[in-house]
Amino acid sequence: MSLRVTIWNEYRHEKEHAAVRRVYPDGLHAPIAAHLAGQGMRVRVATLDEPEHGLTAAVLADTDVLFWWGHMAHGEVQDAVVDRVQQAVLGGLGLVVLHSGHFSKIFKRLMGTSCDLKWREAEEKERIWVVEPGHPIAAGLGEYFEIPHEEMYGERFDVPAPDELVFVSWFQGGEVFRSGCCYRRGAGRIFYFRPGHESYPTYYQPEVLRVIANGARWAAPEAGRPTITFGHRPESLEPLPGPSA
Amino acid sequence: MSLRVTIWNEYRHEKEHAAVRRVYPDGLHAPIAAHLAGQGMRVRVATLDEPEHGLTAAVLADTDVLFWWGHMAHGEVQDAVVDRVQQAVLGGLGLVVLHSGHFSKIFKRLMGTSCDLKWREAEEKERIWVVEPGHPIAAGLGEYFEIPHEEMYGERFDVPAPDELVFVSWFQGGEVFRSGCCYRRGAGRIFYFRPGHESYPTYYQPEVLRVIANGARWAAPEAGRPTITFGHRPESLEPLPGPSA
Amino acid sequence: MSLRVTIWNEYRHEKEHAAVRRVYPDGLHAPIAAHLAGQGMRVRVATLDEPEHGLTAAVLADTDVLFWWGHMAHGEVQDAVVDRVQQAVLGGLGLVVLHSGHFSKIFKRLMGTSCDLKWREAEEKERIWVVEPGHPIAAGLGEYFEIPHEEMYGERFDVPAPDELVFVSWFQGGEVFRSGCCYRRGAGRIFYFRPGHESYPTYYQPEVLRVIANGARWAAPEAGRPTITFGHRPESLEPLPGPSA
Amino acid sequence: MSLRVTIWNEYRHEKEHAAVRRVYPDGLHAPIAAHLAGQGMRVRVATLDEPEHGLTAAVLADTDVLFWWGHMAHGEVQDAVVDRVQQAVLGGLGLVVLHSGHFSKIFKRLMGTSCDLKWREAEEKERIWVVEPGHPIAAGLGEYFEIPHEEMYGERFDVPAPDELVFVSWFQGGEVFRSGCCYRRGAGRIFYFRPGHESYPTYYQPEVLRVIANGARWAAPEAGRPTITFGHRPESLEPLPGPSA
Repeated sequence: MSLRVTIWNEYRHEKEHAAVRRVYPDGLHAPIAAHLAGQGMRVRVATLDEPEHGLTAAVLADTDVLFWWGHMAHGEVQDAVVDRVQQAVLGGLGLVVLHSGHFSKIFKRLMGTSCDLKWREAEEKERIWVVEPGHPIAAGLGEYFEIPHEEMYGERFDVPAPDELVFVSWFQGGEVFRSGCCYRRGAGRIFYFRPGHESYPTYYQPEVLRVIANGARWAAPEAGRPTITFGHRPESLEPLPGPSA
Repeated sequence: MSLRVTIWNEYRHEKEHAAVRRVYPDGLHAPIAAHLAGQGMRVRVATLDEPEHGLTAAVLADTDVLFWWGHMAHGEVQDAVVDRVQQAVLGGLGLVVLHSGHFSKIFKRLMGTSCDLKWREAEEKERIWVVEPGHPIAAGLGEYFEIPHEEMYGERFDVPAPDELVFVSWFQGGEVFRSGCCYRRGAGRIFYFRPGHESYPTYYQPEVLRVIANGARWAAPEAGRPTITFGHRPESLEPLPGPSA
Repeated sequence: MSLRVTIWNEYRHEKEHAAVRRVYPDGLHAPIAAHLAGQGMRVRVATLDEPEHGLTAAVLADTDVLFWWGHMAHGEVQDAVVDRVQQAVLGGLGLVVLHSGHFSKIFKRLMGTSCDLKWREAEEKERIWVVEPGHPIAAGLGEYFEIPHEEMYGERFDVPAPDELVFVSWFQGGEVFRSGCCYRRGAGRIFYFRPGHESYPTYYQPEVLRVIANGARWAAPEAGRPTITFGHRPESLEPLPGPSA
Repeated sequence: MSLRVTIWNEYRHEKEHAAVRRVYPDGLHAPIAAHLAGQGMRVRVATLDEPEHGLTAAVLADTDVLFWWGHMAHGEVQDAVVDRVQQAVLGGLGLVVLHSGHFSKIFKRLMGTSCDLKWREAEEKERIWVVEPGHPIAAGLGEYFEIPHEEMYGERFDVPAPDELVFVSWFQGGEVFRSGCCYRRGAGRIFYFRPGHESYPTYYQPEVLRVIANGARWAAPEAGRPTITFGHRPESLEPLPGPSA
C-alpha cells in the first residue's frame, strides 16, 4: 500500500509576501508534494486556514506521516488540533518537522523544551554533513551536500539530545547546527530537518527532496505493532502470596 | 554551600485517609525531608493547598532540586505553576519525580508523552536491580535491593527512552519496569524514581532514602554553566560575501 | 532482491551432547534457517569446524545479515575471522547475536566491554516484555511473550547502554535482563537477542522466530548509503587565509 | 581526597621534532599537568618509553583518571598494557582521550569501531560550540570558544554515537566535528576531546585547560559504587517449581 502523507503548511508567507510567492507560487508544500507523489506516495495537503487547519480526525486516521511547516502564525494553531496530533504521534503517526516548525506548538509539545536557537538571514552557504552514513535518512546522499543560500540556525538548539543524530550543518558565518534529529515518542517517530527558509528555493533542491522522502519512509509506522494496554491490572500473571496482615 | 531542596507533596492522602496517615503521620514528605536534612541539605516543603502550591517564583529561585510527589489531585495543579516549574527546569533546576508523579502535569509536560503504565495494588515484592553500577545514583547500593510490599508498575512505560537507565524492577506478580530513569532537558536534569505508594512505608527504607539523596545530588545544577543566548544574530562571526543579487 | 542471511552456529553441543541433539537433531540453526527461508530470505549456514569457520571473504560479501550462536568454543574462533567480521559490520553488514553469543569474540570486540552477566540453569520461566512497541523488531508480538523453560541471564549485563532497548525479561527466579538490545556501529547494525539455550526448544517457538525474522530485517544494510572517505584532505572546501608567519 | 590523575603522553614528537619542542619544551603533558596540579589534583606523568609504558598495575591502581595523548607510535603500545587499561576502565577508571589519541589502541578497543576521520593541517581556525550547556564538562565556558590555529578533524567520525555530545566544532575550511564525546563503558567513563595538535600551543589556552580539568572531574569514578558479581548463580532468589520431567 502506498505511504499516505499529509503535508501541513501554514501557507501565509506565500499569500502575503510577493517575494516568497515568486519562489513558491503554489505554496512551499507544492514541490514537496510533487516529489513525494513522484515516489509513489499518496499525498494530501492541509493548511492553517482550513477548518480545523485541515487536520480533522478523519484526515489523521488516513495519514501515515505528517509534515509540518509553520513560521509566522504558530500561535493561531488551535490547542485542540495540537492535542489531536500529539495523540496521533504517540499512537504511531510519523511526524517530519521542517525548518521554522521547530517553534510550532506540536514540536514544542512533543519535545518538552523551548526548542529555541540562534538565527540570521544573510544569504549564507550551509553545508550539511552526514554523521551517520548507515542511517536510512542518509541513503543516496554523498558525504555532505550544500545549500547555496539559507537562513542560519545556530547552536545551542534547545531540544532533548536526539535519539539519532543524522546531520550536522556548517554555516559560512561561523555556526554549527544539529540539522537532522530523530526522536521516538510513544509508538511514533519524529524527524526534524532544518533547511527550508521561505525565501530560498531550498525545497526544489534534489538532495533536500531526497532527505524529505527518506524521512517520510523512516517515520512511517510499523505494520503489526503490539497493542499496548495501560491502567489497572487487577490480576497478577504469577501467583502472589495471600494478603499480608 | 548546601544543596537547596524543595520537596513538593500533594499532601491529600495523608489528610483524607487514616490508613495513609498511620504510615506517614506528618506527610510522606517528612521522612524524605528528615533524611536529606541529615545529609546536610537545606530542605523546604511545599504542598498543593498552599497559595501557588508553595512554588512561588521566589521559592523556585531559591531551590536547586525540586522533588515531586502527587497522585489524586494532579488536575488541581495550576497551569501557571506548571509553566513556571518547566521554565525553571529548562534553566537548570533539578527535578526528581517520585512514583505516581509519573502522571503529574509537570512530568508529562517535560516528557511530551502520555507517561502511562500498568499498575496493581497487591502487596507484592519489588526487587530493584542496578543496571548501571557506575552511575552516581547507584552509589552505596548493592547489586539490587528489595521492597517487601509495593504497588506494581509495569511496562510499557510510555516515556521517551531515558538518557540513562539506572534501575529495572522485578515484580513478584510477573512484570518489569524501568524504575530509575534520567533525562536532560534544557540545562536541567530530571530523575524519575518509581517506588513510593502512599500506603506502604517505602520512604522509611534506607536504600530508598539513599537513592533519593543520590538523586538530589545528581540532579543539582552545575555551577558556572554557560549562559546561552537565543534569537537573532544580525552579525556573523565570520565575514560573508556581499549580498547576492 | 531477497535478504541474504548467513547463520553461523558453533555446532558442537549438537554433536557432543545427546540431550541437545534430541532437541535440535539438525543443529539449532536448522529451525532458524527454515523459518527465515520461509519468509523469503536466502539462507546459508556456516559453522566453526569448516575452513575459515565458513566465513570467507566471499561469503561475507554475499551476506546482508549474519547471525551468531556460539558457546563452548568461543576461544577457537580465529582472530583473523573476527577481524574480517568486524570490518564487514563496520562496513554495513547486519549482525544478530543470539544468547550465549554475548561472550563471543566478535560481540566483545564490537562492544568494547566484558559482556559478562549472571546465569542459572533451572528450567525456569522467562517472560519477555516489549518496552518499545513502535520498534520494528517488536512487530507482530503482543505486550509480552513467555518461554516456559529457559536459562536465566541476569543483570548487570556489562554492555554499553543500547542505542535502542526493545525487550526486558522477567525471570521466575527473581532476575531481570535487557533481552533485546540494538546498536549501530560504523555503518552496521547489531541486535542482541537473549533467548536460546541449547537444551530447550526455544528456537521452535513462534514468537522467538518472529523476533529473529524481524531482527534480520532491521539489521539489514540500507541500499544507497553514502560512501564515506577517511584520511588526509589536503584541499579545504572553503578558502583559507594564507599560511601564518 | 585529591583526584589522582595520570597523564600518558607518547612523548616522541617533542624529542624528535624541534618545531614541536619549541612549543612544548617539557612535553605537551607539561602544561596539562601544571594546570591540573594547580586545581588541586595529584598528577603523575607516564610515557611510552618507560617500562610497561609507565602504566604498571600499581600505577593504574593509584589512578582515578587517565589522560591519553598519542600519535606517531600507536603501534608500539603493548597489547598487554592495552588489556590492563581496558580492564581498569571497565572497573571504573576514568579515561580522557585527547586529539590524535582517537587512533590509539585503547580508544579503538573501547569503542569497537575504526575511530577514523578526515584531517588537514592548514593553520585554520576552530570554533568549538557548546551544544549541552548543562553538562559539567561545559562549566565555566561561554557559548563557544575559538582556537586560532588547529589541525582540522572532519566528520564522519567513526565512533559509536556518544552517550552525551557536549561540543561540536566548526572549521574555517568547511568541516564540522563532534569534538566532545562522552561514553560510559563498564563502570568507567570516557571523554574524547578533539583539540591538541602537537605543533600548536593549544594546551596553553585557558578554555582548553578548563575543559581538560572539567573532563577529569567528570570522568572520575564514583565513591561507593556497587560491587557487581558475574557468573553462575546456582540458587534462585525466588522459589522455583521442582525440576520438570
